[in-house]
Amino acid sequence: MAAPISNLTLRELLAAGPFHAFLGMELLDYDPAAGTVAIRLPWRPEFERLPDSRQWHGGPIAALIDIAGDFALVALLGRGIPTINLRIDYLRPAIETDLWAIGRTLRAGRSVGVVDVEVKDGAGRGSYATLPST
Amino acid sequence: MAAPISNLTLRELLAAGPFHAFLGMELLDYDPAAGTVAIRLPWRPEFERLPDSRQWHGGPIAALIDIAGDFALVALLGRGIPTINLRIDYLRPAIETDLWAIGRTLRAGRSVGVVDVEVKDGAGRGSYATLPST
Amino acid sequence: MAAPISNLTLRELLAAGPFHAFLGMELLDYDPAAGTVAIRLPWRPEFERLPDSRQWHGGPIAALIDIAGDFALVALLGRGIPTINLRIDYLRPAIETDLWAIGRTLRAGRSVGVVDVEVKDGAGRGSYATLPST
Amino acid sequence: MAAPISNLTLRELLAAGPFHAFLGMELLDYDPAAGTVAIRLPWRPEFERLPDSRQWHGGPIAALIDIAGDFALVALLGRGIPTINLRIDYLRPAIETDLWAIGRTLRAGRSVGVVDVEVKDGAGRGSYATLPST
Repeated sequence: MAAPISNLTLRELLAAGPFHAFLGMELLDYDPAAGTVAIRLPWRPEFERLPDSRQWHGGPIAALIDIAGDFALVALLGRGIPTINLRIDYLRPAIETDLWAIGRTLRAGRSVGVVDVEVKDGAGRGSYATLPST
Repeated sequence: MAAPISNLTLRELLAAGPFHAFLGMELLDYDPAAGTVAIRLPWRPEFERLPDSRQWHGGPIAALIDIAGDFALVALLGRGIPTINLRIDYLRPAIETDLWAIGRTLRAGRSVGVVDVEVKDGAGRGSYATLPST
Repeated sequence: MAAPISNLTLRELLAAGPFHAFLGMELLDYDPAAGTVAIRLPWRPEFERLPDSRQWHGGPIAALIDIAGDFALVALLGRGIPTINLRIDYLRPAIETDLWAIGRTLRAGRSVGVVDVEVKDGAGRGSYATLPST
Repeated sequence: MAAPISNLTLRELLAAGPFHAFLGMELLDYDPAAGTVAIRLPWRPEFERLPDSRQWHGGPIAALIDIAGDFALVALLGRGIPTINLRIDYLRPAIETDLWAIGRTLRAGRSVGVVDVEVKDGAGRGSYATLPST
Protein backbone atom coordinates (compact mmCIF):
# COMPACT_ATOMS: atom_id res chain seq x y z
CA MET A 1 0.00 0.00 0.00
CA ALA A 2 1.16 3.52 -0.68
CA ALA A 3 2.02 5.83 2.18
CA PRO A 4 -1.07 7.28 3.86
CA ILE A 5 -2.38 10.36 2.12
CA SER A 6 -2.04 13.48 4.22
CA ASN A 7 -4.68 16.16 4.67
CA LEU A 8 -2.64 18.37 2.38
CA THR A 9 -2.35 15.71 -0.30
CA LEU A 10 -6.04 14.88 -0.22
CA ARG A 11 -6.92 18.56 -0.65
CA GLU A 12 -4.41 18.79 -3.46
CA LEU A 13 -5.87 15.76 -5.22
CA LEU A 14 -9.36 17.22 -4.86
CA ALA A 15 -8.17 20.36 -6.61
CA ALA A 16 -6.04 18.55 -9.22
CA GLY A 17 -7.18 18.35 -12.79
CA PRO A 18 -9.21 20.72 -14.94
CA PHE A 19 -12.66 19.23 -14.19
CA HIS A 20 -12.09 19.30 -10.42
CA ALA A 21 -10.90 22.90 -10.79
CA PHE A 22 -14.11 23.73 -12.65
CA LEU A 23 -16.24 22.16 -9.92
CA GLY A 24 -14.42 23.87 -7.07
CA MET A 25 -14.97 21.32 -4.30
CA GLU A 26 -13.74 21.80 -0.71
CA LEU A 27 -12.58 19.01 1.60
CA LEU A 28 -14.48 19.45 4.88
CA ASP A 29 -13.29 16.39 6.76
CA TYR A 30 -12.00 12.87 6.31
CA ASP A 31 -11.07 9.78 8.32
CA PRO A 32 -8.41 7.60 6.68
CA ALA A 33 -8.96 4.74 9.13
CA ALA A 34 -12.70 4.47 8.49
CA GLY A 35 -12.62 5.47 4.83
CA THR A 36 -15.03 8.38 5.17
CA VAL A 37 -14.93 11.83 3.65
CA ALA A 38 -17.04 15.00 3.65
CA ILE A 39 -16.88 17.35 0.66
CA ARG A 40 -18.63 20.65 -0.06
CA LEU A 41 -19.53 21.83 -3.55
CA PRO A 42 -20.30 25.57 -3.51
CA TRP A 43 -22.92 26.84 -5.93
CA ARG A 44 -21.76 28.48 -9.13
CA PRO A 45 -23.99 29.89 -11.88
CA GLU A 46 -22.84 27.33 -14.48
CA PHE A 47 -24.52 24.59 -12.39
CA GLU A 48 -28.04 25.94 -12.95
CA ARG A 49 -30.51 23.61 -14.65
CA LEU A 50 -32.76 26.12 -16.43
CA PRO A 51 -32.40 29.90 -16.57
CA ASP A 52 -33.77 31.48 -13.40
CA SER A 53 -34.77 28.07 -12.01
CA ARG A 54 -32.24 28.34 -9.17
CA GLN A 55 -32.18 24.51 -9.31
CA TRP A 56 -29.03 22.40 -9.56
CA HIS A 57 -28.58 20.41 -12.74
CA GLY A 58 -28.15 16.72 -11.99
CA GLY A 59 -24.75 16.63 -13.69
CA PRO A 60 -22.66 18.35 -10.99
CA ILE A 61 -24.57 16.37 -8.33
CA ALA A 62 -23.64 13.10 -10.04
CA ALA A 63 -20.00 14.24 -10.30
CA LEU A 64 -19.96 15.20 -6.60
CA ILE A 65 -21.36 11.78 -5.61
CA ASP A 66 -18.83 9.96 -7.79
CA ILE A 67 -15.92 11.96 -6.37
CA ALA A 68 -17.05 11.67 -2.73
CA GLY A 69 -17.30 7.89 -3.13
CA ASP A 70 -13.90 7.79 -4.78
CA PHE A 71 -12.18 9.95 -2.18
CA ALA A 72 -13.51 7.86 0.70
CA LEU A 73 -11.40 5.03 -0.74
CA VAL A 74 -8.51 7.33 -1.67
CA ALA A 75 -8.36 8.44 1.98
CA LEU A 76 -8.39 4.81 3.11
CA LEU A 77 -6.00 3.29 0.57
CA GLY A 78 -3.65 6.17 -0.14
CA ARG A 79 -3.74 6.10 -3.93
CA GLY A 80 -5.96 6.95 -6.90
CA ILE A 81 -8.90 4.62 -7.51
CA PRO A 82 -10.89 4.39 -10.79
CA THR A 83 -14.69 4.24 -10.73
CA ILE A 84 -16.27 0.97 -11.93
CA ASN A 85 -19.92 1.97 -11.74
CA LEU A 86 -22.29 4.34 -10.02
CA ARG A 87 -25.97 4.61 -9.10
CA ILE A 88 -27.46 8.03 -8.45
CA ASP A 89 -30.93 8.61 -6.96
CA TYR A 90 -32.31 12.12 -7.31
CA LEU A 91 -34.70 12.43 -4.38
CA ARG A 92 -35.82 16.06 -4.66
CA PRO A 93 -34.92 19.11 -6.76
CA ALA A 94 -31.89 20.74 -5.10
CA ILE A 95 -32.27 24.51 -4.86
CA GLU A 96 -29.38 26.96 -5.25
CA THR A 97 -27.26 26.57 -2.14
CA ASP A 98 -23.97 24.83 -1.41
CA LEU A 99 -24.13 21.04 -1.59
CA TRP A 100 -22.22 18.62 0.60
CA ALA A 101 -21.61 14.91 0.28
CA ILE A 102 -20.65 12.31 2.87
CA GLY A 103 -18.94 9.17 1.54
CA ARG A 104 -18.72 6.08 3.75
CA THR A 105 -16.79 2.96 2.71
CA LEU A 106 -18.89 -0.21 2.95
CA ARG A 107 -16.13 -2.51 1.73
CA ALA A 108 -12.57 -2.20 0.52
CA GLY A 109 -11.65 -5.55 -0.99
CA ARG A 110 -8.67 -6.74 -3.00
CA SER A 111 -10.13 -5.71 -6.35
CA VAL A 112 -13.36 -3.81 -5.53
CA GLY A 113 -14.42 -1.15 -3.05
CA VAL A 114 -18.00 -0.06 -2.39
CA VAL A 115 -19.00 3.32 -0.95
CA ASP A 116 -22.35 4.79 0.10
CA VAL A 117 -22.75 8.52 -0.52
CA GLU A 118 -25.28 10.78 1.12
CA VAL A 119 -25.92 14.15 -0.46
CA LYS A 120 -28.53 16.83 0.16
CA ASP A 121 -31.62 15.81 -1.84
CA GLY A 122 -29.97 12.74 -3.33
CA ALA A 123 -28.10 9.50 -2.65
CA GLY A 124 -25.56 7.40 -4.44
CA ARG A 125 -23.56 4.22 -4.33
CA GLY A 126 -20.45 3.48 -6.32
CA SER A 127 -18.09 0.60 -6.96
CA TYR A 128 -14.43 1.39 -7.48
CA ALA A 129 -11.48 -0.65 -8.74
CA THR A 130 -9.06 -1.09 -5.85
CA LEU A 131 -6.57 -3.39 -7.56
CA PRO A 132 -3.25 -1.52 -7.89
CA SER A 133 -2.25 -1.05 -11.51
CA THR A 134 0.91 -2.95 -12.37
CA MET B 1 -49.80 14.79 -24.23
CA ALA B 2 -48.12 17.99 -25.24
CA ALA B 3 -47.66 18.84 -28.91
CA PRO B 4 -44.75 16.95 -30.48
CA ILE B 5 -41.41 18.66 -29.99
CA SER B 6 -39.89 19.86 -33.25
CA ASN B 7 -36.29 19.48 -34.30
CA LEU B 8 -35.80 23.14 -33.55
CA THR B 9 -37.35 22.87 -30.12
CA LEU B 10 -35.30 19.81 -29.17
CA ARG B 11 -32.09 21.61 -30.17
CA GLU B 12 -33.20 24.65 -28.21
CA LEU B 13 -33.94 22.56 -25.12
CA LEU B 14 -30.53 20.90 -25.42
CA ALA B 15 -28.90 24.34 -25.39
CA ALA B 16 -31.17 25.80 -22.68
CA GLY B 17 -29.85 26.41 -19.24
CA PRO B 18 -26.42 27.31 -17.95
CA PHE B 19 -25.14 23.76 -17.38
CA HIS B 20 -26.16 22.61 -20.87
CA ALA B 21 -24.47 25.72 -22.25
CA PHE B 22 -21.29 24.81 -20.37
CA LEU B 23 -21.36 21.25 -21.76
CA GLY B 24 -21.98 22.34 -25.34
CA MET B 25 -23.84 19.27 -26.64
CA GLU B 26 -25.03 18.91 -30.24
CA LEU B 27 -28.17 17.06 -31.36
CA LEU B 28 -27.12 14.67 -34.12
CA ASP B 29 -30.41 12.85 -34.74
CA TYR B 30 -33.63 11.82 -33.09
CA ASP B 31 -36.78 9.77 -33.75
CA PRO B 32 -39.85 10.97 -31.85
CA ALA B 33 -41.86 7.84 -32.73
CA ALA B 34 -39.27 5.39 -31.37
CA GLY B 35 -38.00 7.59 -28.55
CA THR B 36 -34.36 7.54 -29.65
CA VAL B 37 -31.79 10.31 -29.75
CA ALA B 38 -28.13 10.75 -30.71
CA ILE B 39 -26.11 13.53 -29.05
CA ARG B 40 -22.47 14.58 -29.47
CA LEU B 41 -20.40 16.13 -26.70
CA PRO B 42 -17.30 17.83 -28.15
CA TRP B 43 -14.16 17.79 -26.04
CA ARG B 44 -13.27 20.90 -24.09
CA PRO B 45 -10.24 21.37 -21.83
CA GLU B 46 -12.35 21.71 -18.67
CA PHE B 47 -13.42 18.05 -19.07
CA GLU B 48 -9.92 16.69 -18.51
CA ARG B 49 -9.44 14.31 -15.58
CA LEU B 50 -5.84 15.03 -14.64
CA PRO B 51 -3.47 17.59 -16.15
CA ASP B 52 -1.99 16.26 -19.40
CA SER B 53 -3.86 12.96 -19.03
CA ARG B 54 -5.97 13.66 -22.12
CA GLN B 55 -8.63 11.48 -20.40
CA TRP B 56 -12.26 12.48 -19.87
CA HIS B 57 -13.35 12.93 -16.28
CA GLY B 58 -16.33 10.70 -15.50
CA GLY B 59 -18.48 13.71 -14.56
CA PRO B 60 -19.24 15.03 -18.06
CA ILE B 61 -19.73 11.43 -19.25
CA ALA B 62 -22.34 10.84 -16.54
CA ALA B 63 -24.07 14.11 -17.44
CA LEU B 64 -24.11 13.16 -21.14
CA ILE B 65 -25.65 9.76 -20.34
CA ASP B 66 -28.30 11.35 -18.10
CA ILE B 67 -29.23 13.92 -20.73
CA ALA B 68 -29.27 11.45 -23.65
CA GLY B 69 -31.62 9.19 -21.69
CA ASP B 70 -33.79 12.15 -20.76
CA PHE B 71 -34.00 13.53 -24.29
CA ALA B 72 -35.01 10.15 -25.74
CA LEU B 73 -38.17 10.50 -23.62
CA VAL B 74 -38.49 14.25 -24.28
CA ALA B 75 -38.49 13.48 -28.02
CA LEU B 76 -41.14 10.79 -27.50
CA LEU B 77 -43.42 12.58 -25.03
CA GLY B 78 -43.00 16.20 -26.02
CA ARG B 79 -42.31 17.69 -22.59
CA GLY B 80 -39.65 17.92 -19.89
CA ILE B 81 -39.03 14.77 -17.87
CA PRO B 82 -37.19 14.66 -14.49
CA THR B 83 -34.59 11.97 -13.80
CA ILE B 84 -35.45 9.43 -11.08
CA ASN B 85 -32.18 7.52 -11.05
CA LEU B 86 -29.18 6.78 -13.16
CA ARG B 87 -26.77 3.85 -13.50
CA ILE B 88 -23.38 4.42 -15.12
CA ASP B 89 -20.77 1.80 -16.05
CA TYR B 90 -17.34 3.13 -16.95
CA LEU B 91 -15.93 0.45 -19.26
CA ARG B 92 -12.61 1.99 -20.31
CA PRO B 93 -10.81 5.32 -19.89
CA ALA B 94 -12.12 7.64 -22.62
CA ILE B 95 -9.34 9.54 -24.36
CA GLU B 96 -9.64 13.15 -25.54
CA THR B 97 -11.93 13.05 -28.56
CA ASP B 98 -15.57 13.97 -29.06
CA LEU B 99 -18.04 11.70 -27.28
CA TRP B 100 -21.44 10.65 -28.56
CA ALA B 101 -24.36 8.98 -26.84
CA ILE B 102 -27.27 7.00 -28.26
CA GLY B 103 -30.40 6.86 -26.07
CA ARG B 104 -33.07 4.22 -26.77
CA THR B 105 -36.37 4.13 -24.88
CA LEU B 106 -37.06 0.70 -23.38
CA ARG B 107 -40.35 1.68 -21.78
CA ALA B 108 -42.48 4.83 -21.49
CA GLY B 109 -45.12 4.03 -18.89
CA ARG B 110 -47.69 6.17 -17.11
CA SER B 111 -45.36 7.19 -14.30
CA VAL B 112 -41.91 5.81 -15.26
CA GLY B 113 -39.82 5.70 -18.42
CA VAL B 114 -36.64 3.66 -18.84
CA VAL B 115 -33.90 4.41 -21.38
CA ASP B 116 -30.74 2.53 -22.34
CA VAL B 117 -27.79 4.73 -23.25
CA GLU B 118 -24.74 3.64 -25.20
CA VAL B 119 -21.68 5.86 -25.07
CA LYS B 120 -18.11 5.39 -26.25
CA ASP B 121 -16.25 3.50 -23.50
CA GLY B 122 -19.25 3.42 -21.20
CA ALA B 123 -22.89 2.47 -20.79
CA GLY B 124 -25.82 3.77 -18.83
CA ARG B 125 -29.46 3.28 -18.02
CA GLY B 126 -31.79 5.79 -16.48
CA SER B 127 -35.31 5.90 -15.05
CA TYR B 128 -37.29 9.07 -15.54
CA ALA B 129 -40.57 10.36 -14.06
CA THR B 130 -43.09 10.52 -16.89
CA LEU B 131 -46.10 11.55 -14.82
CA PRO B 132 -47.15 15.07 -15.88
CA SER B 133 -46.85 17.53 -13.03
CA THR B 134 -50.23 18.87 -11.99
CA MET C 1 -54.42 6.55 0.87
CA ALA C 2 -55.64 3.14 1.93
CA ALA C 3 -56.26 2.39 5.57
CA PRO C 4 -53.04 1.76 7.48
CA ILE C 5 -51.85 -1.83 7.22
CA SER C 6 -51.94 -3.62 10.55
CA ASN C 7 -49.23 -5.84 11.96
CA LEU C 8 -51.40 -8.83 11.11
CA THR C 9 -51.98 -7.68 7.56
CA LEU C 10 -48.31 -6.99 6.94
CA ARG C 11 -47.40 -10.47 8.17
CA GLU C 12 -50.12 -11.93 6.00
CA LEU C 13 -48.87 -10.07 2.93
CA LEU C 14 -45.34 -11.27 3.63
CA ALA C 15 -46.61 -14.84 3.62
CA ALA C 16 -48.98 -14.39 0.66
CA GLY C 17 -48.14 -15.88 -2.69
CA PRO C 18 -46.24 -19.01 -3.68
CA PHE C 19 -42.78 -17.41 -3.96
CA HIS C 20 -43.04 -15.73 -0.54
CA ALA C 21 -44.18 -19.08 0.87
CA PHE C 22 -41.12 -20.76 -0.65
CA LEU C 23 -38.80 -18.13 0.87
CA GLY C 24 -40.36 -18.31 4.34
CA MET C 25 -39.62 -14.77 5.55
CA GLU C 26 -40.54 -13.52 9.05
CA LEU C 27 -41.57 -9.96 9.91
CA LEU C 28 -39.39 -8.89 12.86
CA ASP C 29 -40.47 -5.27 13.22
CA TYR C 30 -41.88 -2.33 11.32
CA ASP C 31 -42.69 1.36 11.75
CA PRO C 32 -45.52 2.61 9.52
CA ALA C 33 -44.81 6.27 10.33
CA ALA C 34 -41.15 6.13 9.32
CA GLY C 35 -41.51 3.56 6.56
CA THR C 36 -39.04 1.08 8.01
CA VAL C 37 -39.20 -2.69 8.26
CA ALA C 38 -37.03 -5.55 9.52
CA ILE C 39 -37.40 -9.00 7.97
CA ARG C 40 -35.64 -12.29 8.69
CA LEU C 41 -35.02 -14.97 6.09
CA PRO C 42 -34.18 -18.28 7.77
CA TRP C 43 -31.75 -20.57 5.99
CA ARG C 44 -33.13 -23.48 4.01
CA PRO C 45 -31.11 -26.06 2.05
CA GLU C 46 -32.51 -24.96 -1.32
CA PHE C 47 -30.73 -21.59 -0.87
CA GLU C 48 -27.25 -23.13 -1.02
CA ARG C 49 -24.96 -21.90 -3.80
CA LEU C 50 -22.83 -24.99 -4.41
CA PRO C 51 -23.13 -28.41 -2.76
CA ASP C 52 -21.48 -28.39 0.66
CA SER C 53 -20.42 -24.72 0.24
CA ARG C 54 -22.71 -23.61 3.08
CA GLN C 55 -22.85 -20.27 1.21
CA TRP C 56 -26.05 -18.44 0.26
CA HIS C 57 -26.79 -18.14 -3.43
CA GLY C 58 -27.24 -14.49 -4.42
CA GLY C 59 -30.78 -15.13 -5.70
CA PRO C 60 -32.58 -15.38 -2.34
CA ILE C 61 -30.50 -12.44 -1.05
CA ALA C 62 -31.64 -10.29 -3.99
CA ALA C 63 -35.25 -11.34 -3.39
CA LEU C 64 -34.97 -10.49 0.32
CA ILE C 65 -33.56 -7.03 -0.49
CA ASP C 66 -36.29 -6.37 -3.05
CA ILE C 67 -39.03 -7.42 -0.64
CA ALA C 68 -37.63 -5.53 2.36
CA GLY C 69 -37.49 -2.35 0.25
CA ASP C 70 -40.99 -2.95 -0.99
CA PHE C 71 -42.46 -3.64 2.45
CA ALA C 72 -40.94 -0.47 3.94
CA LEU C 73 -43.21 1.41 1.52
CA VAL C 74 -46.13 -0.99 1.99
CA ALA C 75 -45.95 -0.31 5.74
CA LEU C 76 -45.90 3.44 5.08
CA LEU C 77 -48.52 3.67 2.33
CA GLY C 78 -50.86 0.83 3.21
CA ARG C 79 -51.09 -0.85 -0.19
CA GLY C 80 -49.13 -3.01 -2.62
CA ILE C 81 -46.26 -1.29 -4.45
CA PRO C 82 -44.56 -2.64 -7.62
CA THR C 83 -40.77 -2.56 -7.95
CA ILE C 84 -39.35 -0.25 -10.65
CA ASN C 85 -35.66 -1.11 -10.31
CA LEU C 86 -33.14 -2.47 -7.89
CA ARG C 87 -29.41 -2.38 -7.25
CA ILE C 88 -27.78 -5.15 -5.23
CA ASP C 89 -24.20 -5.04 -3.93
CA TYR C 90 -22.78 -8.35 -2.73
CA LEU C 91 -20.16 -7.32 -0.19
CA ARG C 92 -19.00 -10.69 1.12
CA PRO C 93 -20.01 -14.35 0.74
CA ALA C 94 -22.84 -14.99 3.22
CA ILE C 95 -22.38 -18.22 5.14
CA GLU C 96 -25.26 -20.53 6.14
CA THR C 97 -27.11 -18.69 8.89
CA ASP C 98 -30.34 -16.76 9.00
CA LEU C 99 -30.29 -13.47 7.08
CA TRP C 100 -32.05 -10.27 8.06
CA ALA C 101 -32.77 -7.11 6.13
CA ILE C 102 -33.56 -3.60 7.31
CA GLY C 103 -35.43 -1.38 4.84
CA ARG C 104 -35.51 2.40 5.39
CA THR C 105 -37.60 4.73 3.20
CA LEU C 106 -35.55 7.60 1.77
CA ARG C 107 -38.44 9.13 -0.15
CA ALA C 108 -42.11 8.37 -0.77
CA GLY C 109 -43.21 10.65 -3.58
CA ARG C 110 -46.36 10.86 -5.66
CA SER C 111 -45.14 8.38 -8.26
CA VAL C 112 -41.83 7.01 -6.93
CA GLY C 113 -40.53 5.77 -3.61
CA VAL C 114 -36.87 5.02 -2.81
CA VAL C 115 -35.68 2.66 -0.07
CA ASP C 116 -32.24 1.78 1.27
CA VAL C 117 -31.81 -1.82 2.39
CA GLU C 118 -29.11 -3.13 4.67
CA VAL C 119 -28.54 -6.86 4.79
CA LYS C 120 -25.84 -9.02 6.36
CA ASP C 121 -22.93 -9.08 3.87
CA GLY C 122 -24.77 -7.01 1.27
CA ALA C 123 -26.63 -3.80 0.54
CA GLY C 124 -29.37 -2.70 -1.79
CA ARG C 125 -31.41 0.22 -3.02
CA GLY C 126 -34.69 0.03 -4.86
CA SER C 127 -37.15 2.35 -6.57
CA TYR C 128 -40.82 1.49 -6.35
CA ALA C 129 -43.92 2.77 -8.17
CA THR C 130 -46.09 4.51 -5.61
CA LEU C 131 -48.75 5.84 -7.98
CA PRO C 132 -52.04 4.09 -7.14
CA SER C 133 -53.32 2.00 -10.06
CA THR C 134 -56.56 3.35 -11.45
CA MET D 1 -6.70 -18.93 -17.87
CA ALA D 2 -8.41 -22.23 -17.21
CA ALA D 3 -9.16 -24.60 -20.06
CA PRO D 4 -12.22 -23.56 -22.05
CA ILE D 5 -15.46 -24.77 -20.54
CA SER D 6 -17.21 -27.33 -22.73
CA ASN D 7 -20.90 -27.38 -23.57
CA LEU D 8 -21.28 -30.29 -21.16
CA THR D 9 -19.45 -28.48 -18.37
CA LEU D 10 -21.45 -25.29 -18.77
CA ARG D 11 -24.72 -27.27 -18.58
CA GLU D 12 -23.39 -29.08 -15.53
CA LEU D 13 -22.44 -25.82 -13.83
CA LEU D 14 -25.89 -24.42 -14.59
CA ALA D 15 -27.44 -27.42 -12.85
CA ALA D 16 -24.93 -27.52 -9.98
CA GLY D 17 -25.94 -26.45 -6.52
CA PRO D 18 -29.25 -26.60 -4.68
CA PHE D 19 -30.54 -23.14 -5.73
CA HIS D 20 -29.82 -23.75 -9.41
CA ALA D 21 -31.58 -27.12 -9.09
CA PHE D 22 -34.61 -25.38 -7.58
CA LEU D 23 -34.70 -22.86 -10.44
CA GLY D 24 -34.38 -25.50 -13.17
CA MET D 25 -32.68 -23.38 -15.87
CA GLU D 26 -31.81 -24.74 -19.32
CA LEU D 27 -28.79 -23.69 -21.40
CA LEU D 28 -30.09 -22.80 -24.88
CA ASP D 29 -26.92 -21.54 -26.51
CA TYR D 30 -23.57 -19.93 -25.79
CA ASP D 31 -20.55 -18.49 -27.57
CA PRO D 32 -17.30 -18.76 -25.59
CA ALA D 33 -15.43 -16.43 -27.97
CA ALA D 34 -17.95 -13.57 -27.68
CA GLY D 35 -18.94 -14.18 -24.07
CA THR D 36 -22.67 -14.57 -24.77
CA VAL D 37 -25.17 -17.03 -23.38
CA ALA D 38 -28.90 -17.79 -23.73
CA ILE D 39 -30.72 -19.45 -20.82
CA ARG D 40 -34.36 -20.49 -20.41
CA LEU D 41 -36.15 -20.55 -17.08
CA PRO D 42 -39.33 -22.67 -17.34
CA TRP D 43 -42.29 -21.62 -15.21
CA ARG D 44 -42.95 -23.44 -11.99
CA PRO D 45 -45.78 -22.77 -9.55
CA GLU D 46 -43.42 -21.68 -6.75
CA PHE D 47 -42.45 -18.63 -8.88
CA GLU D 48 -45.95 -17.08 -8.72
CA ARG D 49 -46.19 -13.62 -7.19
CA LEU D 50 -49.70 -13.74 -5.73
CA PRO D 51 -52.14 -16.66 -5.69
CA ASP D 52 -53.93 -16.93 -9.06
CA SER D 53 -52.07 -13.87 -10.41
CA ARG D 54 -50.21 -15.97 -13.00
CA GLN D 55 -47.48 -13.29 -12.68
CA TRP D 56 -43.80 -14.01 -12.06
CA HIS D 57 -42.40 -12.80 -8.76
CA GLY D 58 -39.40 -10.52 -9.33
CA GLY D 59 -37.14 -12.80 -7.29
CA PRO D 60 -36.63 -15.59 -9.84
CA ILE D 61 -36.30 -12.95 -12.60
CA ALA D 62 -33.48 -11.23 -10.67
CA ALA D 63 -31.78 -14.59 -10.12
CA LEU D 64 -32.06 -15.45 -13.83
CA ILE D 65 -30.53 -12.09 -14.80
CA ASP D 66 -27.68 -12.52 -12.31
CA ILE D 67 -26.91 -16.05 -13.54
CA ALA D 68 -27.16 -15.19 -17.26
CA GLY D 69 -24.70 -12.32 -16.73
CA ASP D 70 -22.41 -14.55 -14.74
CA PHE D 71 -22.45 -17.41 -17.24
CA ALA D 72 -21.63 -15.11 -20.16
CA LEU D 73 -18.31 -14.51 -18.40
CA VAL D 74 -17.97 -18.14 -17.28
CA ALA D 75 -18.30 -19.18 -20.94
CA LEU D 76 -15.66 -16.62 -21.92
CA LEU D 77 -13.15 -17.12 -19.11
CA GLY D 78 -13.56 -20.79 -18.30
CA ARG D 79 -13.96 -20.50 -14.52
CA GLY D 80 -16.37 -19.44 -11.81
CA ILE D 81 -16.89 -15.69 -11.41
CA PRO D 82 -18.46 -14.00 -8.33
CA THR D 83 -21.04 -11.24 -8.73
CA ILE D 84 -20.00 -7.74 -7.57
CA ASN D 85 -23.30 -5.98 -8.15
CA LEU D 86 -26.49 -6.23 -10.12
CA ARG D 87 -28.96 -3.71 -11.58
CA ILE D 88 -32.47 -4.91 -12.45
CA ASP D 89 -35.20 -2.96 -14.26
CA TYR D 90 -38.67 -4.49 -14.19
CA LEU D 91 -40.31 -3.14 -17.34
CA ARG D 92 -43.68 -4.92 -17.29
CA PRO D 93 -45.37 -7.65 -15.25
CA ALA D 94 -44.23 -10.99 -16.69
CA ILE D 95 -47.12 -13.40 -17.12
CA GLU D 96 -46.86 -17.17 -16.55
CA THR D 97 -44.79 -18.51 -19.45
CA ASP D 98 -41.20 -19.64 -19.78
CA LEU D 99 -38.64 -16.84 -19.45
CA TRP D 100 -35.38 -16.57 -21.32
CA ALA D 101 -32.36 -14.35 -20.81
CA ILE D 102 -29.61 -13.31 -23.21
CA GLY D 103 -26.32 -12.24 -21.59
CA ARG D 104 -23.77 -10.29 -23.64
CA THR D 105 -20.33 -9.39 -22.28
CA LEU D 106 -19.58 -5.67 -22.59
CA ARG D 107 -16.15 -5.89 -20.99
CA ALA D 108 -13.94 -8.58 -19.46
CA GLY D 109 -11.11 -6.75 -17.74
CA ARG D 110 -8.38 -7.86 -15.41
CA SER D 111 -10.45 -7.42 -12.26
CA VAL D 112 -13.99 -6.58 -13.45
CA GLY D 113 -16.34 -7.89 -16.13
CA VAL D 114 -19.59 -6.20 -17.18
CA VAL D 115 -22.50 -7.99 -18.85
CA ASP D 116 -25.77 -6.70 -20.31
CA VAL D 117 -28.76 -9.01 -19.87
CA GLU D 118 -31.96 -8.87 -21.85
CA VAL D 119 -34.95 -10.72 -20.46
CA LYS D 120 -38.62 -10.78 -21.44
CA ASP D 121 -40.27 -7.80 -19.71
CA GLY D 122 -37.11 -6.72 -17.95
CA ALA D 123 -33.46 -5.78 -18.34
CA GLY D 124 -30.35 -6.08 -16.24
CA ARG D 125 -26.67 -5.36 -16.03
CA GLY D 126 -24.17 -6.92 -13.71
CA SER D 127 -20.56 -6.43 -12.69
CA TYR D 128 -18.55 -9.51 -11.84
CA ALA D 129 -15.15 -10.05 -10.19
CA THR D 130 -12.86 -11.55 -12.82
CA LEU D 131 -9.65 -11.55 -10.79
CA PRO D 132 -8.64 -15.19 -10.20
CA SER D 133 -8.65 -16.07 -6.52
CA THR D 134 -5.18 -16.84 -5.25
